[in-house]
Parts: sequence; structure tokens; C-alpha cells
Amino acid sequence: MLSTPTIVVNVKTYLEATASSALQLTQLMNTLASETGASLALAVQATDIYQCAHIGKLPIFSQHIDPITPGSHTGWTLPQAVVQAGAQGTLINHSEHRLTLADIDLCVTLAKKHHLDHIICTNNVTTSKAAATLTPQFIAIEPPELIGGDISVTTANPDIVAHSVRSVKAIDKKIHVLCGAGVKNGNDVTRAIELGSDGVLLASGVVKPANKEEILRDLISGLP
Amino acid sequence: MLSTPTIVVNVKTYLEATASSALQLTQLMNTLASETGASLALAVQATDIYQCAHIGKLPIFSQHIDPITPGSHTGWTLPQAVVQAGAQGTLINHSEHRLTLADIDLCVTLAKKHHLDHIICTNNVTTSKAAATLTPQFIAIEPPELIGGDISVTTANPDIVAHSVRSVKAIDKKIHVLCGAGVKNGNDVTRAIELGSDGVLLASGVVKPANKEEILRDLISGLP
Amino acid sequence: MLSTPTIVVNVKTYLEATASSALQLTQLMNTLASETGASLALAVQATDIYQCAHIGKLPIFSQHIDPITPGSHTGWTLPQAVVQAGAQGTLINHSEHRLTLADIDLCVTLAKKHHLDHIICTNNVTTSKAAATLTPQFIAIEPPELIGGDISVTTANPDIVAHSVRSVKAIDKKIHVLCGAGVKNGNDVTRAIELGSDGVLLASGVVKPANKEEILRDLISGLP
Amino acid sequence: MLSTPTIVVNVKTYLEATASSALQLTQLMNTLASETGASLALAVQATDIYQCAHIGKLPIFSQHIDPITPGSHTGWTLPQAVVQAGAQGTLINHSEHRLTLADIDLCVTLAKKHHLDHIICTNNVTTSKAAATLTPQFIAIEPPELIGGDISVTTANPDIVAHSVRSVKAIDKKIHVLCGAGVKNGNDVTRAIELGSDGVLLASGVVKPANKEEILRDLISGLP
Repeated sequence: MLSTPTIVVNVKTYLEATASSALQLTQLMNTLASETGASLALAVQATDIYQCAHIGKLPIFSQHIDPITPGSHTGWTLPQAVVQAGAQGTLINHSEHRLTLADIDLCVTLAKKHHLDHIICTNNVTTSKAAATLTPQFIAIEPPELIGGDISVTTANPDIVAHSVRSVKAIDKKIHVLCGAGVKNGNDVTRAIELGSDGVLLASGVVKPANKEEILRDLISGLP
Repeated sequence: MLSTPTIVVNVKTYLEATASSALQLTQLMNTLASETGASLALAVQATDIYQCAHIGKLPIFSQHIDPITPGSHTGWTLPQAVVQAGAQGTLINHSEHRLTLADIDLCVTLAKKHHLDHIICTNNVTTSKAAATLTPQFIAIEPPELIGGDISVTTANPDIVAHSVRSVKAIDKKIHVLCGAGVKNGNDVTRAIELGSDGVLLASGVVKPANKEEILRDLISGLP
Repeated sequence: MLSTPTIVVNVKTYLEATASSALQLTQLMNTLASETGASLALAVQATDIYQCAHIGKLPIFSQHIDPITPGSHTGWTLPQAVVQAGAQGTLINHSEHRLTLADIDLCVTLAKKHHLDHIICTNNVTTSKAAATLTPQFIAIEPPELIGGDISVTTANPDIVAHSVRSVKAIDKKIHVLCGAGVKNGNDVTRAIELGSDGVLLASGVVKPANKEEILRDLISGLP
Repeated sequence: MLSTPTIVVNVKTYLEATASSALQLTQLMNTLASETGASLALAVQATDIYQCAHIGKLPIFSQHIDPITPGSHTGWTLPQAVVQAGAQGTLINHSEHRLTLADIDLCVTLAKKHHLDHIICTNNVTTSKAAATLTPQFIAIEPPELIGGDISVTTANPDIVAHSVRSVKAIDKKIHVLCGAGVKNGNDVTRAIELGSDGVLLASGVVKPANKEEILRDLISGLP
């Protein structure tokens, strides 16, 4: 399983990290992980899993799996296909790809069955607790107070993150919690971990800028 | 563009054509296409596009694209990602992956923009005509009378296919029509083409059996 | 069938036209229709159809139907239920409630079977043509150039509406076309009809203001 | 709030309980509730809420609400519209109308805000626990072992229901649990309550037969 504390980067469908650009980011993170010993992972588009998973040791995640078994499901994402392409894990229920409760449960069950690391994404304390009852390995919480603005983990009311973490661990203390919003730099990583989380999940802050190496080095510097 | 008459195989999410098995089927079809000069194409899972598109000249199709542009669409299928992975084309609106009318329109527009061959799948004469107004390259019709039973193009009332073809061509005679149901062997391929279609789209009949080569050779023998 | 030219008002889920407020708007439009002889209709929430359909002669429309037959479809909108509640018609595929192409086709078929007047909503010229092949009674076009801005039918390039109308009538001249965007007052109604449409479909401009009677009288004054 | 133990009947979209037939069933259940003192409730289609809620004291439920606030949501089910039509409560996340986890959370929040009794439907022990963390009034569990077959609560392994009830109450003992499958007669009602549930939710067994009164009297006889 992905070791913690960890930094997980989700490239979404940005062209800045599609195909050969996804591969370059993979190589960069692979190098930085080797050099620093940090636990890093990268969630890429389904089309890019195979290549990214085969040029180094960086754990590659799928951005999504569908709650399906092999058969007549044209165009959907089969968990086994993701595994066979080389993915070590998958996001489940990302805010841009919500699933029904029944399907989240089924995806967690399938991920466990096929030995896929899995991170359920949730949008507030209540749904984080609900997700925790499904006993996933990871939950990435996106406190609404920290989304889409200039407020970061470092500047926000510390209880926003701490309360989310406590709520999940109260249901099941073995679940790892990632801070999925409000993290832009190394200080934020440090603060997120001080507040009880086991790492961070971020996206555009790493993917879009040209100076990806500088940004990643700063983020990694915030790990304990 | 995919030359016609053509035989397009959709592997859906069958394990018999996932990852290395998808690759084997690609190699087999690549060999048969070279040997016979037949126009063949294979629609694989997104995770398998890259590999299948890089071991030969066989046109590889995506099974689906989402009507999205680059950005925040975690876990969805970006047309450009499919292109950059090596796909020559894509299915749109497969019966197992239906889209809204507005989204089919947008997918066709995006496919044209990114030079992706595209096949809209439709379920009856009426929706085939509707799809035809979107001016796609291909429409794969699945006459309801021919789905899921033992009736094939050869044994059915000939007007079932002929009427569908005429209805599409009456809207726009440049659109190529594939027969998407009722085709199991070479005789069916011959008959589908006699009735006006420009080829066939099939799935489990090729994907699940062990004797794939024998089945494909028979299908190809039905081409004019 | 709803006579043309017509003015159709969709109250969406505004509280200003829910329950007793929907009833008041129905009564007002009923009075104005009787007084002026104008063809008016009102699309209300499913919960309000029964009451609104039973206090006068104003044609009441459902805002949506689902493509279902009686049975196990908890919480979905059965066409027969809408009819039995008293609706004369229904919107289909409103921009806030998009359907797959196969489902639009099925909804039109069900609406015809159950003698429900029906208006398919479309978002551009291409999808309007596609909708026209389904031979509905009405298509309400929302030219993108006229949505959500200050440009109205009166001030816009006249060809925007005229081209949409011609495209639909070229497929089937019996289809009535409503102008579904860019109409705020009587002048716009007059212009929309001059440009070839058979009426208008509007929403918030009528529903939200307090002076509904004044606005409706102005709109009606624009009818020929 | 709906008093317990209770029997809740969901008419789905059966024609046998649409419009005037829904009204007849309401009247029958109203009479039986008055006569026996039993706590009964009926979930009807949105189009039928108004009438059914205004001919007696029987608690009428909506079969669904959408997680929306007033405004531009054409054709969706506004919680306030359901309340204003006269509903006392609503089902949420019925197996035929699944919602995302985030939307179930929002629906529960909206139901509480608008004083709607609410029953979250769940499909197994795990999702029942997840639903329980959202602190709804009621959870209706449908143990997979009891769905769609001839096995009833009375004949099944008693731990199937008892375990589900305990799992929910372990999260929050104030939540009422309904047995949503495997109940066909009074003996099943008795057994469901002996096993810890606070009532039952049923559908076709009451709605489709002609002898509805006989069936309801038998079910009521099973209440303690």
C-alpha cells in the first residue's frame, strides 16, 4: 500500500499532463521520489496508465473505476483493466465524477478484491464519515471552506482539517486521511500533517505551471 | 478515414480482450488485414489504446469519448487523450453508453476537430435519422429485430436493414452505415453489404470464442 | 393541440410559482387568455399539475416526462400520471433536464400514444434538425447567441432565428417552432413570429417579477 | 414524525395506484388507520401528492426529492414543492432512484430544513451504516438475501435482519429502521419487528392485487 505521509497528484484532463506530458511528469516525480525518499503518487488518465506505470517505480493511480465486472460495458472503466495496465491504485468518487452510495461501496469492494489502493474523495465532514464506514484505505477530504479560494490549510481555522480527520478516525482509526484542498506549498503540507492528516491530494497547482520541479520540491520539503 | 467495406470489432470490457489479450487480438487482426487486404478495425478499452495502436497498422478505436475539453474532468475520456494515445477513431453513443442529444452533437464536433474517425451507434430507424442530421462519418444501426436473438441479417426480412440504410442516406448520402446487429458469419457480412450497408460492427461473437482466427477469416470471406 | 401562435411559460422550480403561487399565475393567464383570445400555456412542477389543470381552461404542461411505462420506477415521472393529473402537454429535453437521444425518441412516442402535446427543447441548429426527424409537434429552439444575455430577438441578427426555423421546417414543415430565448416583451414576440416561429417559450422573465399581469399583457400584445 | 411501528406502502408508478386509484388506496388506508390505530403511510407519485394529502389524515410521502433549491431546475422535484403539496415525508435514494453520496447528504439536510419526514433506502449492511452517519429519521434496509424471491423475513436466517438493525443502531440508536424486503403478510410484519425493526416498507404486494383491503388488514394484524 502507498506509504504515508504521501503526496498524491491528480492531473485531471489537463493537456499539460496528457500522453508524453504525463510521461514527463511521471519521470520527474519518479526521480524526486528516488532522490528524497518521499512517498509520491500520480493519478493519470486511463489512456496514460500503461506508459506511466512502465517507466519507473512511481505508483500510478487511475482517476476513476466503474463498479462493473467484465462483459458488456462498452466505454466504461473496468477495475481489472486498470490493474492490468499497471495501476497501483485508483481514486473513487472524485468531486468531478460522483458515484451513488451503492456504487462507491461496490467500487471499494472491487478495489480490495483486485488489490488496488483506493482513495475515496468526499466533500464535507458528514460524507467523510459515511465513506469511513465503507472501510477504504484512504479518504481525501475537501473541506468546503478551503476549496477554490485563497485560504490554505496554513491560514485557515486549524479545526477545519483537524475535525475532519478526527471524524473519520472515530469511525475507523486505520483509515488514512488525505487533505484534498487548501494545499499549495511545503508549509501547507507540513500544516496538513500536523493537523492529523496522512498526506495531501492536489491537482492544478502542480500540473499547470511550467516550473513543476520547483513546486514539487517545495511540497516535498514540507513532509516530516 | 477507415476504408469501406469494413469490419469493426468492439471488445467491450471482456477479459478475453483486455491488456495482453487485447494485444493478441490486435496482432491477429493486423496480420489478417495485411494478408487479405480487408479493412478491419478494433475498439478497445481506453487503458489498452496505447499498446494496441503501437504494434501494427490496425486502426484502433476508442469505445467512447466524453464531450469535454481539457481541464477539470477527473476520470472522464478526453478526445485529445484518445488521439494522443494513438486511436484513429471512436465509437459514440454505444447502446451501453448512451449520451444526451446535445452531447452526441458535441462529441461529433470534437471528433471532427481532432480528426478522429467516428461511429455513432443508434437503436432504430428514427434515431438513425436523427443521428444522420449531425453529419457523422459512420452510423452503426442496431435494428431491434436483430438484437440478442438467433435472427441474423441473412434470415431476417431484408427490408429491416435496407430501410435503415435508405433512411440514413436520404438525410445525407455521404454517411457510411454499418450493420450493428445480426452478423455472426461471412454470409451475414455479404448479405449486410448487399442490403446497402458499408460494413459491420460486432462484439462478443468475435471476442469470446477461443477460435478467433477461424471466425475472423470467415467474416472477412464475406467481404466483396 | 395547442393552437398557434402561442406563448408558453415555464415556471421551473421558482417559489414564485409553486403551489398556491402556481395557481395564481394559472388563474391570471386563464383570465388573460379568455379576455384576449390569445393561445397561452403554462408548464408547472409535477406536484402542481392537478390543481392548475382543474381551475380553468388554461392548457397545463408538465415540465418533463420520463421514458417509462407503468411499474417499478419509484420517483420518476410517468406519462400516464401526468395525463391523468390533467396535463395537456409536456416539455421534453429541457436544457436543465437533458435526455439521451434514444430517450427523447421514446418520450415523443409515449407522448403521442397518450395524446400529450409535446415540445422538444434544443440547443442549436444541428440538434434542432435532429429533433425534427423525430416528428414532434413542437420544437423550442434556444439559439446560443440569445441565451442569458441582453441580446433579444429584436436586436439580434435576424438570421439567427430565421435559420433555425428554416432548418426545422426543411426536415418536416408540419413541426411548429417556438423561440425559446431572447424574448422579453411584446416587440420580441412580434419579431419572433415575423422571423417564422410559431410562438415563444419563456420563463424567469414572467415568473419572477411582481407585475406579472403587466408583463403578460405586453407579451400578448405582440401576437399578430 | 411518523409514529412507529409503521407500515409504509410505496406505489411506485403502477397504474393500479395512479391518480383516482391512488386516491382510493389513500382512502382505504385512511379508514384502516382510523379503525385500527395503526401507523400507516403511503408514498405516491409527485402528481398525486396534492389530492392524496387532502382527503384524510393519512401521512403521504413523496417517492423522491432532488437535492435542489428554488430556481432553474425544470422538471426536477423541489423539496418545498412536495411540502406545499401536502407531503409529510419523502423516500430518499430508493433502489430505483439512486443518488450520489453527496446528494443523499444534501437531501437529508433539505428534508430536515423543510420538516419532511425522510426514509433513506439502502441495499446492504455497509451502505446502511454509511447512511446512518447522515443521521436520518428512518433507514429502510433491503437485505439482498430477501429481494425478489420467495424468502421472507419469517423463513430467512433471523440474523439477516437483526444484524442490519444492530449495525444502524450502533452508529446512531435514534434512527428508526424499516425492513424493506421480504415482507408479504402479517406474520412477516410481526417477525420484522421482533428482529428489531421499527416497521416495514413494501410495494407491489399491496399495490397490484385487487384485494388490497384484505392484504392490508393482514399486514396490520402483524403489528404489536
